[in-house]
Amino acid sequence: MTLRPPLDGIRVIDLTRVLSGPFCSMMLGDMGAEVIKVETPDGDPVRQQGTIRDGLSWYFASFNRNKKSVTLDLYHPEGRAVLRRLIEGADVLVENFRPGVLAKMGFDKDTLAEINPRLVVGSINGFGSTGPYVDRPAFDFIAQAMSGLMSTNGPPGGEPMRMAQPITDLLAGLYTAFGIVSALRGRDINGTGQAVETSMVNGALSTMAYIASEYFAAGKLPERMGNDHPLVAPYSLFDAADGKIAIAPSNDTILQRLLDALGLGTLLSDPRYDTNPKRFERRDELRALLNEKLSADTQDGWIVRLNAAGVPCGRVQDLREVFDDPQIRAQEMAIDVEHPGHGTVRMLGFPVKLDQTACEVRLPAPELGAHTQDVLRDAGLSEAEIEALSAAGVLGAQNRNSAQQ
Amino acid sequence: MTLRPPLDGIRVIDLTRVLSGPFCSMMLGDMGAEVIKVETPDGDPVRQQGTIRDGLSWYFASFNRNKKSVTLDLYHPEGRAVLRRLIEGADVLVENFRPGVLAKMGFDKDTLAEINPRLVVGSINGFGSTGPYVDRPAFDFIAQAMSGLMSTNGPPGGEPMRMAQPITDLLAGLYTAFGIVSALRGRDINGTGQAVETSMVNGALSTMAYIASEYFAAGKLPERMGNDHPLVAPYSLFDAADGKIAIAPSNDTILQRLLDALGLGTLLSDPRYDTNPKRFERRDELRALLNEKLSADTQDGWIVRLNAAGVPCGRVQDLREVFDDPQIRAQEMAIDVEHPGHGTVRMLGFPVKLDQTACEVRLPAPELGAHTQDVLRDAGLSEAEIEALSAAGVLGAQNRNSAQQ
Repeated sequence: MTLRPPLDGIRVIDLTRVLSGPFCSMMLGDMGAEVIKVETPDGDPVRQQGTIRDGLSWYFASFNRNKKSVTLDLYHPEGRAVLRRLIEGADVLVENFRPGVLAKMGFDKDTLAEINPRLVVGSINGFGSTGPYVDRPAFDFIAQAMSGLMSTNGPPGGEPMRMAQPITDLLAGLYTAFGIVSALRGRDINGTGQAVETSMVNGALSTMAYIASEYFAAGKLPERMGNDHPLVAPYSLFDAADGKIAIAPSNDTILQRLLDALGLGTLLSDPRYDTNPKRFERRDELRALLNEKLSADTQDGWIVRLNAAGVPCGRVQDLREVFDDPQIRAQEMAIDVEHPGHGTVRMLGFPVKLDQTACEVRLPAPELGAHTQDVLRDAGLSEAEIEALSAAGVLGAQNRNSAQQ
Repeated sequence: MTLRPPLDGIRVIDLTRVLSGPFCSMMLGDMGAEVIKVETPDGDPVRQQGTIRDGLSWYFASFNRNKKSVTLDLYHPEGRAVLRRLIEGADVLVENFRPGVLAKMGFDKDTLAEINPRLVVGSINGFGSTGPYVDRPAFDFIAQAMSGLMSTNGPPGGEPMRMAQPITDLLAGLYTAFGIVSALRGRDINGTGQAVETSMVNGALSTMAYIASEYFAAGKLPERMGNDHPLVAPYSLFDAADGKIAIAPSNDTILQRLLDALGLGTLLSDPRYDTNPKRFERRDELRALLNEKLSADTQDGWIVRLNAAGVPCGRVQDLREVFDDPQIRAQEMAIDVEHPGHGTVRMLGFPVKLDQTACEVRLPAPELGAHTQDVLRDAGLSEAEIEALSAAGVLGAQNRNSAQQ
């Protein structure tokens, strides 16, 4: 028996652009939802960003799989009327406008609930939809700075440092996807939809985890420690003969295993190193000691030996090494997707693995407006209505009635 | 009318410990699920970690809200028999053992499906449950190293750098929570549960986003850029009179606004700076030029002015500043929770905001084993059975029948 994907039959109207929102709706699409990406006639700006190969942005392709594209001019009252029709037949609306923009377009909360009381509305924004910063423009870098995330990152004594990954976009998108699916289940038991929201700053702040608990409990601000652990030593990056390895002996048992493997088995009985606070104090000495031993073999040599001894460790891999890594290959974390007319696009695979209904690419990223006519027909618009909208330019150049051109 | 929380009525048997799994089950609990944390008689090790105040680890309290605690010795066959009873009545089982451990305890996939075909099984692990590294011990630091995440972080010319946040634990937990709720919806339409899994490495790798697309499309390894943008300049941390501010002018329109606000309005007509590639080449010069202007006012002064001009910018805040920030306060991202016998614990609030059924702390983090007897009764065990288990020590010291001691 073939099982249906988890979100099969769920229709998502997706007004998002760039990254946080498209990542959220991609998660829903990967789980089987029908995602209708509603784009302005000039399209999501990411269509023009990053390396373009055979006429396609691989960045766009990677975050818009499993979506259909409808072009709609929402500055035009007829465009907004079409959006209303789409919302009537949808389960979910996702948007990542600045708070208030959707309301200004005529779709405030009450109106949405009136159009479709079962609608789940997912919103992603920079700072949240209430509070003094609600109107500020947001950006991943700014959210990293304001959330405290950067304050703990970077080398000891150096400046606060962002992470290169657009982590606040992705976290806000992922939290919102989780919130949307939860609210869909809430709808099943309550009969009505509701609004769900995550901000980039709130999502980023949630990553502070025990760093935040410690700050609350002890009142001490965390220091920047680079690759060293704030409490435990040794625990850092070390130098094998041919490159860096990360070693994380998180308790004394594992540390003893590491020291045994390095031929330093008696180190913990040396009065200079017999407690963690002493080791932490002398961590640079320890680092030198360990590096000297580690220089006797390669990364791969140590990784086999230390893992066999039960010591968590691993290579610091660049992306080439990552995608050559047999584990990453076994997990299919890079996939090749055919894009008719644009060749084969390589993209990241699916981080969530389901054993009965594995995520798959049912649809490659859509051409701009490719599904406009189909979706409108599906929403109950007549051929005459579609033709009139097309003639009026509401559906973008791609869908302008050819007789009118 | 009061609506029920989205996951009301969903029962989760939670075998997880430390961080990734407890974070996942906390997400489910925050959404209204009944989470039954099954602990070994000596409890989740996090109960002893971090600052202990009034007999309670604030780290533990922060990641175990909205859970009940049952102590059960799973090395004891009677303990495993009780777990089987709990699984019979559950909707979800979550675990973060190393792959294979649950099967060794007698709960392989087939057995679980036989006990409860509607069960959704969520697993979190380091590298995935298939592939050559399946048996390796995992740790956040190692996953950061192996996923490529560290290779792009850190100062230009410096060593790869981890982020201080346990991001790979959190991402794996959050992805799994999303997968579990999706699979619950899948169960509603298919009639059967399934297994869902995310690894720390796969979750971390998914954050590479457009960095990965660019690598795939152009084949060039990303360089470490610290706080500078890999393509655009100016875009970095700058120095106001009293501290750092992050400024992110992501396109020429916003850059012109920034330059106007700084009294550098004509800079883009200077032939040294009139294209982004030239600016990128001379980004250190530009930084000096901007810093000189920015030194004329405070962080707060510039932030008001630049935001008013529509330039994304913000303070680099430490945790004290974060929790004093009026926006963070408006978003209730720090909450105070009463823990009877342990005072009031401050912890991070809810990153996902629902407008009809806001997340709330219905239960503070439980005392070890506090709900053992209630949960077993609820699972249909008789008083005599519970007494026998208690006498045999299967329920831990907290629940040893007092008559036997």
